[in-house]
Amino acid sequence: MKEYILKVDSVDEKGLIYRITDIILKHNLNIHSSSEFVDHENGRFFFRAVIKTDNDINESSFLGSLSGFIPNANIKFGMKRKKDIIILATKETHCLGDLLIRHYSGELDANIKAVIANYDDLRNLVEKFEVPFFHISSNDISREDHEKQVLAKMSEYEFDYAILAKYMRILSPNFVAKYPEKIINIHHSFLPAFIGANPYKQAFKRGVKIIGATAHFVNNDLDEGPIITQDVISINHEMSWQDMRKAGRNVERNVLASGLDLVLDDRVFVYDNKTVIF
Amino acid sequence: MKEYILKVDSVDEKGLIYRITDIILKHNLNIHSSSEFVDHENGRFFFRAVIKTDNDINESSFLGSLSGFIPNANIKFGMKRKKDIIILATKETHCLGDLLIRHYSGELDANIKAVIANYDDLRNLVEKFEVPFFHISSNDISREDHEKQVLAKMSEYEFDYAILAKYMRILSPNFVAKYPEKIINIHHSFLPAFIGANPYKQAFKRGVKIIGATAHFVNNDLDEGPIITQDVISINHEMSWQDMRKAGRNVERNVLASGLDLVLDDRVFVYDNKTVIF
Amino acid sequence: MKEYILKVDSVDEKGLIYRITDIILKHNLNIHSSSEFVDHENGRFFFRAVIKTDNDINESSFLGSLSGFIPNANIKFGMKRKKDIIILATKETHCLGDLLIRHYSGELDANIKAVIANYDDLRNLVEKFEVPFFHISSNDISREDHEKQVLAKMSEYEFDYAILAKYMRILSPNFVAKYPEKIINIHHSFLPAFIGANPYKQAFKRGVKIIGATAHFVNNDLDEGPIITQDVISINHEMSWQDMRKAGRNVERNVLASGLDLVLDDRVFVYDNKTVIF
Amino acid sequence: MKEYILKVDSVDEKGLIYRITDIILKHNLNIHSSSEFVDHENGRFFFRAVIKTDNDINESSFLGSLSGFIPNANIKFGMKRKKDIIILATKETHCLGDLLIRHYSGELDANIKAVIANYDDLRNLVEKFEVPFFHISSNDISREDHEKQVLAKMSEYEFDYAILAKYMRILSPNFVAKYPEKIINIHHSFLPAFIGANPYKQAFKRGVKIIGATAHFVNNDLDEGPIITQDVISINHEMSWQDMRKAGRNVERNVLASGLDLVLDDRVFVYDNKTVIF
Repeated sequence: MKEYILKVDSVDEKGLIYRITDIILKHNLNIHSSSEFVDHENGRFFFRAVIKTDNDINESSFLGSLSGFIPNANIKFGMKRKKDIIILATKETHCLGDLLIRHYSGELDANIKAVIANYDDLRNLVEKFEVPFFHISSNDISREDHEKQVLAKMSEYEFDYAILAKYMRILSPNFVAKYPEKIINIHHSFLPAFIGANPYKQAFKRGVKIIGATAHFVNNDLDEGPIITQDVISINHEMSWQDMRKAGRNVERNVLASGLDLVLDDRVFVYDNKTVIF
Repeated sequence: MKEYILKVDSVDEKGLIYRITDIILKHNLNIHSSSEFVDHENGRFFFRAVIKTDNDINESSFLGSLSGFIPNANIKFGMKRKKDIIILATKETHCLGDLLIRHYSGELDANIKAVIANYDDLRNLVEKFEVPFFHISSNDISREDHEKQVLAKMSEYEFDYAILAKYMRILSPNFVAKYPEKIINIHHSFLPAFIGANPYKQAFKRGVKIIGATAHFVNNDLDEGPIITQDVISINHEMSWQDMRKAGRNVERNVLASGLDLVLDDRVFVYDNKTVIF
Repeated sequence: MKEYILKVDSVDEKGLIYRITDIILKHNLNIHSSSEFVDHENGRFFFRAVIKTDNDINESSFLGSLSGFIPNANIKFGMKRKKDIIILATKETHCLGDLLIRHYSGELDANIKAVIANYDDLRNLVEKFEVPFFHISSNDISREDHEKQVLAKMSEYEFDYAILAKYMRILSPNFVAKYPEKIINIHHSFLPAFIGANPYKQAFKRGVKIIGATAHFVNNDLDEGPIITQDVISINHEMSWQDMRKAGRNVERNVLASGLDLVLDDRVFVYDNKTVIF
Repeated sequence: MKEYILKVDSVDEKGLIYRITDIILKHNLNIHSSSEFVDHENGRFFFRAVIKTDNDINESSFLGSLSGFIPNANIKFGMKRKKDIIILATKETHCLGDLLIRHYSGELDANIKAVIANYDDLRNLVEKFEVPFFHISSNDISREDHEKQVLAKMSEYEFDYAILAKYMRILSPNFVAKYPEKIINIHHSFLPAFIGANPYKQAFKRGVKIIGATAHFVNNDLDEGPIITQDVISINHEMSWQDMRKAGRNVERNVLASGLDLVLDDRVFVYDNKTVIF
């Protein structure tokens, strides 16, 4: 069976689900599963349906009918497909390595098109998996020029998402603006706690009993983008900040992988700097 | 605004949501939120909607229209209301006390109509909260006769659910059959682990590193009813089984309270000895 | 058997455990369990032992021997005893009610000597449990004068800890200084996230996926005292900030209760604005 | 600085810590950290210390002194060293791949000496990391003969632990007896729930709301060995058993990795079919 995903978000108004399901029925299709949410504070409607069918759907005809019926909505519709991603990294192995293994085993529902890093350390690991690796050094070069080179390399690829798998550089607003809602970062703290540099040292100093990690979309404000998922682990007084960092790496890799799963499965809407996730 | 809850479960067929939302729209109503799930293995459709409106809805007219349109469905519809519950207990304070406090503060969205216990120990606590307490001793009496007395007392009340808040007696099939999907138990283990007597001793002996609790509907098979919710906590080698029991009490009271919240909010469907929870 | 608790913290030096256990052995006592931790960054040693014995220990003789042997240490030694606590509250029921029930059932290893509140709302609940309740209004009165009255009332009681069970007033440095390491607060967020007013609104606005609560000792800096314990729960886009607050209440009451258990069991050392917990 | 680990377990008697720390002091050594636990039910004493020193310790002299002083104890003492492990696998990638990446990055404190599998599917992955891979087919061969071949291959290596990273074959008592407390398995359920085949199908059918995984030592009784660590995740009615299996894989890899960390760090004692973990 073929699987199609329909995502609709719109100003809320009466009868939206009725109209959407009317079109689905008129195309003789059956909803396999669906979710709906209305943000009543902002008057915003979100809907996602999985449609399974033995026949091909004429996507543009379907989309045309639907758009005519709910003219103010953002509508995404198409056959479920494996997404293409690019990974940006620096030196750390744990998140990148985890994605490479998941990619290799088919657990990650995406093609890793390339890895770009500002150090060469990760080349050996990446090339084991026959994924193109590009070292674009950030030494002896302005931030602007470095970003230009990275963007140039990225522009050689078609991709759905760029994943910052411990890319330890802050992206400029100009860079971010090129890929709105397409850049996903793993932040090594339970945001908004410990924004900024070395959250594990901050956590150690503060004496917290739980640390965490956050997967989020990147926007102009560092560490302020829409949060996709978060998780935590307990820590205790015996742990140095290095122990916390080690423990935190497990959370980081898990949170990045599960956040990516949600995004790659077309389950995430971004709105009002937050996410709606079905 | 008034809040109505619509719950539908039905053999799955094409166009169900369309038909439901058609009726809702024809009654000039707006869906505040809705959820849908199809169990494709069993071909079963589940739908729940919250409808908010300034006007009263003619419930029987609405229900009539809907039933005519989806004739094979179980449909529940009505204004959201505070449910009535009866609590059965034995001697332990933690679950009952938690419910009494939540009841007192308004956190528990239910009226506790009465507490029935097979010991008198809890009378003092219950009567502090002006809740009727009935001691029906199970000493020197057959199980059958004891159940008869308990059922007689219960039959004096109208109630939506009977909560076994550490009621340490096994209910006979005859008793359970009187209240299908209406009796909720808190089981002091992470089912299906440690079925039966003294799960904390069993857990201690087995040397597990996590223990839990389970809120479930009661059916004929002891500890085998549909699970509503579960939670766990970590334990370690330092803990005796009494320590585990003490730690477990926290999980028990939390799991019972959160399971009840789901049931009282009309979020739970029971089907195929499992629950669908929106 | 009688149970004694020994707590030692000291500048770290060679042979501390040897010297401590030497004294214990010379008094013909046996260690039931013990824990040790050295904070190597600060050169600080922490030790706690539970000693069980059939005979009474001459506490001052034991303490004298030990102090002579490790002259620079803070030593606490004594028979395990039920602690006395005073609770400060405002209007909210959930934490206070939970403590009252645990107190009633014997789960809370403490005597609640009194409850002091700046509103009268909680009187009815507290008096159900035959605990003295004092309403000291903060209306039409300066912060200073209000604190004076509260302190005056507190001074009528001997107590080990004062618990802020959702006491919604900020304590002055003067107040805090009177009871160092004796005031415990439950903070309705996962510190250091969402310091300050209405953390649930802040969490909602930020779109986080997890919220939490923190039990901590109170010092001069609001929300900056040594953390005892923390816990979290998952939330999602469907929840309003009021839903989050309701869910958060469960975490708050659990975190306060488990933090208190640690303190009342003499397991907590405070040092360098952090806690060491055995 | 050099780091030594001392592990002692013994029949409990008075003065054990005193005697141990006496010997440590007489060798002019300082305890960096230590933990102690007495299982009073079984009268068993457990002690672990980390000793850091700038000088080499004469291990046999130290061990000799200590053994003379506490003659009935099991004592392990030696410089902390990277352990050697062998991995047994079948076809699944997730646990093995995770260990290979952690090994590659240095996060896993062990040398993977070889991987032995009863299918050839994993060769490509293992050989990427320059780890010897041996395919010993279990087809057309008796269980006994297959085990003989596997044992023969294992005997070519010196190793501390054999890790069953989703090795889908039951080991015979004969096999297990060769490596007591040296074989570690990851079980795809929260033991003792869902012992036996396909726990995810069992969990789906039972309608549980939480699933888990267990890392344990292997002994003669399948799934009955001493548990090292366990973890769980929440699931819901939307998940098929295949979804649960996918979600469960994340728990499996995390639990195996964290269980291994504890073992490799010499933190685990096995006693009475349970573990004591410092």
